[in-house]
Amino acid sequence: MKRDIIESAEVIVCSPGRNFVTVKITTKAGYIGYGDATLNGRELAVAAYLEHYLCPLLEGRSVFQTEDIWNYFYKGAYWRKGPVTMTAIGAIDMALWDLKGKILETPVYNLLGGKSRSKMLTYTHANGKNLEDTLKRVEELKKASFEAIRVQCGIPGIEKAYGIGEKGIYEPAIKGNKPFEESWSTPKYLNFIPSVFEEVRKEFGEDLHLLHDSHHRLTPTEAARLAKDLEPYHLFWLEDVTPAEHQESFAQIKQKSVTPLAVGEVFNTIHDAHHLISNQSIDYIRMTVSHGGGITPMLKIAHFAEPYHIKTGCHGPSDISPIALAACLHVDTAINNFGIQEYMGYSETTEEAFPHEYYFENGHLHLTEAPGLGVDFNETFARKFEYEKAYLPINRLEDGTMFNW
Amino acid sequence: MKRDIIESAEVIVCSPGRNFVTVKITTKAGYIGYGDATLNGRELAVAAYLEHYLCPLLEGRSVFQTEDIWNYFYKGAYWRKGPVTMTAIGAIDMALWDLKGKILETPVYNLLGGKSRSKMLTYTHANGKNLEDTLKRVEELKKASFEAIRVQCGIPGIEKAYGIGEKGIYEPAIKGNKPFEESWSTPKYLNFIPSVFEEVRKEFGEDLHLLHDSHHRLTPTEAARLAKDLEPYHLFWLEDVTPAEHQESFAQIKQKSVTPLAVGEVFNTIHDAHHLISNQSIDYIRMTVSHGGGITPMLKIAHFAEPYHIKTGCHGPSDISPIALAACLHVDTAINNFGIQEYMGYSETTEEAFPHEYYFENGHLHLTEAPGLGVDFNETFARKFEYEKAYLPINRLEDGTMFNW
Amino acid sequence: MKRDIIESAEVIVCSPGRNFVTVKITTKAGYIGYGDATLNGRELAVAAYLEHYLCPLLEGRSVFQTEDIWNYFYKGAYWRKGPVTMTAIGAIDMALWDLKGKILETPVYNLLGGKSRSKMLTYTHANGKNLEDTLKRVEELKKASFEAIRVQCGIPGIEKAYGIGEKGIYEPAIKGNKPFEESWSTPKYLNFIPSVFEEVRKEFGEDLHLLHDSHHRLTPTEAARLAKDLEPYHLFWLEDVTPAEHQESFAQIKQKSVTPLAVGEVFNTIHDAHHLISNQSIDYIRMTVSHGGGITPMLKIAHFAEPYHIKTGCHGPSDISPIALAACLHVDTAINNFGIQEYMGYSETTEEAFPHEYYFENGHLHLTEAPGLGVDFNETFARKFEYEKAYLPINRLEDGTMFNW
Amino acid sequence: MKRDIIESAEVIVCSPGRNFVTVKITTKAGYIGYGDATLNGRELAVAAYLEHYLCPLLEGRSVFQTEDIWNYFYKGAYWRKGPVTMTAIGAIDMALWDLKGKILETPVYNLLGGKSRSKMLTYTHANGKNLEDTLKRVEELKKASFEAIRVQCGIPGIEKAYGIGEKGIYEPAIKGNKPFEESWSTPKYLNFIPSVFEEVRKEFGEDLHLLHDSHHRLTPTEAARLAKDLEPYHLFWLEDVTPAEHQESFAQIKQKSVTPLAVGEVFNTIHDAHHLISNQSIDYIRMTVSHGGGITPMLKIAHFAEPYHIKTGCHGPSDISPIALAACLHVDTAINNFGIQEYMGYSETTEEAFPHEYYFENGHLHLTEAPGLGVDFNETFARKFEYEKAYLPINRLEDGTMFNW
Repeated sequence: MKRDIIESAEVIVCSPGRNFVTVKITTKAGYIGYGDATLNGRELAVAAYLEHYLCPLLEGRSVFQTEDIWNYFYKGAYWRKGPVTMTAIGAIDMALWDLKGKILETPVYNLLGGKSRSKMLTYTHANGKNLEDTLKRVEELKKASFEAIRVQCGIPGIEKAYGIGEKGIYEPAIKGNKPFEESWSTPKYLNFIPSVFEEVRKEFGEDLHLLHDSHHRLTPTEAARLAKDLEPYHLFWLEDVTPAEHQESFAQIKQKSVTPLAVGEVFNTIHDAHHLISNQSIDYIRMTVSHGGGITPMLKIAHFAEPYHIKTGCHGPSDISPIALAACLHVDTAINNFGIQEYMGYSETTEEAFPHEYYFENGHLHLTEAPGLGVDFNETFARKFEYEKAYLPINRLEDGTMFNW
Repeated sequence: MKRDIIESAEVIVCSPGRNFVTVKITTKAGYIGYGDATLNGRELAVAAYLEHYLCPLLEGRSVFQTEDIWNYFYKGAYWRKGPVTMTAIGAIDMALWDLKGKILETPVYNLLGGKSRSKMLTYTHANGKNLEDTLKRVEELKKASFEAIRVQCGIPGIEKAYGIGEKGIYEPAIKGNKPFEESWSTPKYLNFIPSVFEEVRKEFGEDLHLLHDSHHRLTPTEAARLAKDLEPYHLFWLEDVTPAEHQESFAQIKQKSVTPLAVGEVFNTIHDAHHLISNQSIDYIRMTVSHGGGITPMLKIAHFAEPYHIKTGCHGPSDISPIALAACLHVDTAINNFGIQEYMGYSETTEEAFPHEYYFENGHLHLTEAPGLGVDFNETFARKFEYEKAYLPINRLEDGTMFNW
Repeated sequence: MKRDIIESAEVIVCSPGRNFVTVKITTKAGYIGYGDATLNGRELAVAAYLEHYLCPLLEGRSVFQTEDIWNYFYKGAYWRKGPVTMTAIGAIDMALWDLKGKILETPVYNLLGGKSRSKMLTYTHANGKNLEDTLKRVEELKKASFEAIRVQCGIPGIEKAYGIGEKGIYEPAIKGNKPFEESWSTPKYLNFIPSVFEEVRKEFGEDLHLLHDSHHRLTPTEAARLAKDLEPYHLFWLEDVTPAEHQESFAQIKQKSVTPLAVGEVFNTIHDAHHLISNQSIDYIRMTVSHGGGITPMLKIAHFAEPYHIKTGCHGPSDISPIALAACLHVDTAINNFGIQEYMGYSETTEEAFPHEYYFENGHLHLTEAPGLGVDFNETFARKFEYEKAYLPINRLEDGTMFNW
Repeated sequence: MKRDIIESAEVIVCSPGRNFVTVKITTKAGYIGYGDATLNGRELAVAAYLEHYLCPLLEGRSVFQTEDIWNYFYKGAYWRKGPVTMTAIGAIDMALWDLKGKILETPVYNLLGGKSRSKMLTYTHANGKNLEDTLKRVEELKKASFEAIRVQCGIPGIEKAYGIGEKGIYEPAIKGNKPFEESWSTPKYLNFIPSVFEEVRKEFGEDLHLLHDSHHRLTPTEAARLAKDLEPYHLFWLEDVTPAEHQESFAQIKQKSVTPLAVGEVFNTIHDAHHLISNQSIDYIRMTVSHGGGITPMLKIAHFAEPYHIKTGCHGPSDISPIALAACLHVDTAINNFGIQEYMGYSETTEEAFPHEYYFENGHLHLTEAPGLGVDFNETFARKFEYEKAYLPINRLEDGTMFNW
């Protein structure tokens, strides 16, 4: 019996700590590979895409044929691109790489070019209610060994701004029947946020890497103003300053400031990023393995960015399951132009559902020599937690205008 | 009771003649609006997206707020773009416009700018097995009053090429557990197809509008060769010559020939087309209402194309239900830069499931004064035909390479 | 003992059939991997580069770390790029991939994305002294099952033009103390060559793939003239029309014709090709694994070209040893955007020195399931044939001007 | 006997003070010309290239035919460009110019356009361990009459940064079997280095020309930040801010700052620089005669830069032998757009091996009226010092990533 031939693929939707969609591919020889198909707030659409259309087509295929299978689903769908399609394809691809590693008894990074570094610089989030709270959280995270911190802060006069959690791990998706409605005022934000970084730098000095996320809220001109205003505080990056569907907008911003720019967590294919990269309008490409269509295209994108001096900074919040986080880490390990890895940690329930080899230590994430992706799935345990619908928030300007969340 | 407030929205998946996904929105005053959410070969993913995430959020909203609701779903999803997402949003939007017309007792086109023309030039498909068969079909369609015909033809040496039906309405999606595998040879196609148009012109003269679809099979250079080779036959348009994810490719083609170019049936947002349009790399934008996110964005796209001398040519095969076809026709009627409308007709079962006001006559589609979109949905009848999975074909080169279908 | 740790690396320079430089890397567990470092006419410079500077640094490194080792040699040299440097690095990289496959007991293509096709379309050379001779050779090659033939022909009035062999396998490098001096007249060439293709098409019809190599002899304007003049004969590609150091020159040519363009056999890094590719000035990138720095960068280049609709067409004459040819074939097998593979065959002596798994059949090259690259090196046999200096020819215009060979 | 006909050419590899590769060409009339073929850390590859492939082809050629011979080797190699190839060609070219001058009994500059200036502004290096040490060295160099000083400084927190010597002449290449591994942190560097220039300006005023070398360590955005941060200190130039394989990157940097930019010591042909120059992305082109392929192409490059207001600044560290330094000085003397000349001095042993006419005085290098290049080669003395392998360092980021040295 050939060890690499697929017997079946199935989709598991459950909620161990939060909602996750997991793909499980089994070979005829009994190897099992896992992929993460979680798309926060739209999980069941991806699950349907997988269950009805992709999983049934895998039987009899070799796990080694990742390129052909990827194209079979990408080109074969006719209707290409987009978050649902690409997250579904990405989960399959991830599971196939996991299987390749397991069958060949080697970590996935060894199939991608081997170890290019021993550990991955990691950033996490300090989401303070106000300046005082933000400073306190930065201090806590610094003590917890983080060398890079994304700093967000409640904005005076905005009741509920992006990324401001009451306590513990920030989870924007809220269970229930309606999305939570946040509100927004760009002028208030632009007037306030530089002072936050002034204070953080005063308190913690120049050595800490500081990041900030504008979460798609600014026009190119507003973005350029912020990027310039933040120059004295030497950000590691300024993220998602403007919605990136119109890639050319970033050239406008890049031209006006030396603050490094990052974008891409909502991208699904190279075509969402090619202009940004080949025109060097950004410094970090933030595509992530699951929403970016898997390891196969993620590697191509990292390589595409390399001659342009652009590094990776994979999206990695808690709605990327530990499987997808591990997949990012394997890519991170293998490529030369790795930049940084986002990491928010998981609840205890999630950790129990997905036992994993990767670990966080001294500000960095590390991989071991475990074969495949090095993440197991405790299915029996995880299935105890039923999927419960949760929506990401929506966002309105003060006059009621529907705005970017 | 305010007549415009939504009570509920539901999704009906059934197969009257073929698979269709239909959205039905009911207002508290009892008005019913319909939208088409069919995405050929991926229907249940769109249905899941709608059922779980969009439909539950409509209760209590006013049908008049199409702009706000569209943005609520587009921006509020966080994960934007792509065929599944946009088809789901498009179906909601279409149903809301249908309701607006019904409540105001006026055809939708009157809400879009009124009648700019009384009839819409329409093209249909002549898909011959070989040259003789193609000529015969062109003749039949001409006799059936069509003034514009898309001419496809079996290619000698390619067993199963795109768009070649044995008889009657060509339906590429095939029911069953695996996609049908077609094969392809670009050299054979390029060597043969100009001779088809030479013969068609010889037989039917200059007055007939001829179109041709290369169905994403060519590189920009091959596309330019074909566009040049077809120049003597004065095509109305040459369609989908190359996959359009890399929009800049069309500038290469446009530069080398005066054959009009059309593309866009797979586009889902303006961002898939903005470079093509603002650089005038095409002559017709073929986005369609359902996959393009609804009437709201379709109108914007038509308007965006207007100053660039680019006209519309909405995609309209049989997998666009009569609801979506009617939505296209209302847009077609209202805008100034209408070009042409695709139309393949439907099986009798489909016609029975979707009684409609629009009609075909003398080579043109016509609308009446019926309120809303003018398409009803015979739900009881339609539900008798259960959804049965069907895949669009995939396509391989002769050496086995996964290729564009 | 870890199976992947390198014990030693050595360079073997010998001449079994022709000069070859072979790298042999041995792991502590006894695995042996081979790489090809042959640079026609400059072999000993590459051998010195390897022997003195690269080979001594491999001991103790893991064969899996291809990305790190590649950068160690590329960035670590300080003096980057160029044929000698990159051929040396390429041979190491190739041998490491060979070892990875052997250690993991799988063909190299399975580490690169798996089988994307079962066979590779292959072209070879018909180098006739005159039209009659050319037609005869095309016929012979067609009978030998070739479906794609590069057609070169002696030019009336040019005593010794490029690529015209007396009989058997054409080998431009000539053993001895001086390069052979050819002569050239572009006007004579441009006036004559289209008639050759007219005759070949007349004789052999449209189905045969015809290629032609201008071997860097034309200006952009002359190249555009030739490309236009050859349009009626529908070349598969027109190769090396102008020296490509000035990449922008190709945009000029591409703009003016629909004849597909190929270039790149003399390229050594992505930086030699990035403008050509991202501006879509060519249709085929002809870089080859050995001179292009190995499998690691070749894969990146193929992937870089993919979104631009550009395919590969790896250089593969007899001065690429069977090891490098196999390396090309493994890349060819794995990528989606494979175009064609050049293949000239080898002398019996060469075949005996490099027993290989790949084979030619029905116009295509095939790989088997053999682990690694699937090429062995019969060192004892090969070493019997001592290296003997051979120069590629040089080329002068009729007035004596040093010209491009 | 014609005095200009070459009898023989040979290569001498030895280590008088450090490793040098010297080409010696003898004419039938007994004239001897010297060229420098040293490529730091890769000497024997260039020596092999010369010994086996170039030197044997010179016999019988006239030394006056520098243009033809250069093209014979450049175009005739077929495999063009790169450091090994071009350094080999450059050494031959240099020796031919030396011979031309000697035969005509005139300094080489008289064959290049004559004296355009009487002395060449020269900069040297102040490589301090820390700020205090740096200030001390600047003072010493100022006292030694230097009017232009390249200021480098140890970075707090980086154990072994580029260009920081313990004492005396800084020589990065270290003899032994492995390259020394340096480490690097861009954030630490960027945060510290502006303060060094603030102090240097405070201490030494505005009149001193200050230069700085970032040694290829920055991304375009980081480079732009540094260029902006250094604006108050009015640098003569900021050097090698980013690896220049992707020439377009420099346009990004140039756009954002008025700090003059210099690059090119690793360039080998005009094709490495043409975009940088024709887009005016730099202010100084730093190509040097030996690695740039000789006096013949160096003159062309200087002329190419002239209409773009770009000046020369030839690379001239101690691994460029006095022969190559003299060749730079002859070009510097003759052209109009000379900028500055780098000069580090040599050890006593080197000075004894290469007796020379040029001399340093009052911050400038001067040439005399001596024929040819004005540098002799004490072969008997030099040969006493055997070549001993030395590698340039490699450089890793703190997480182990292979980085640019």
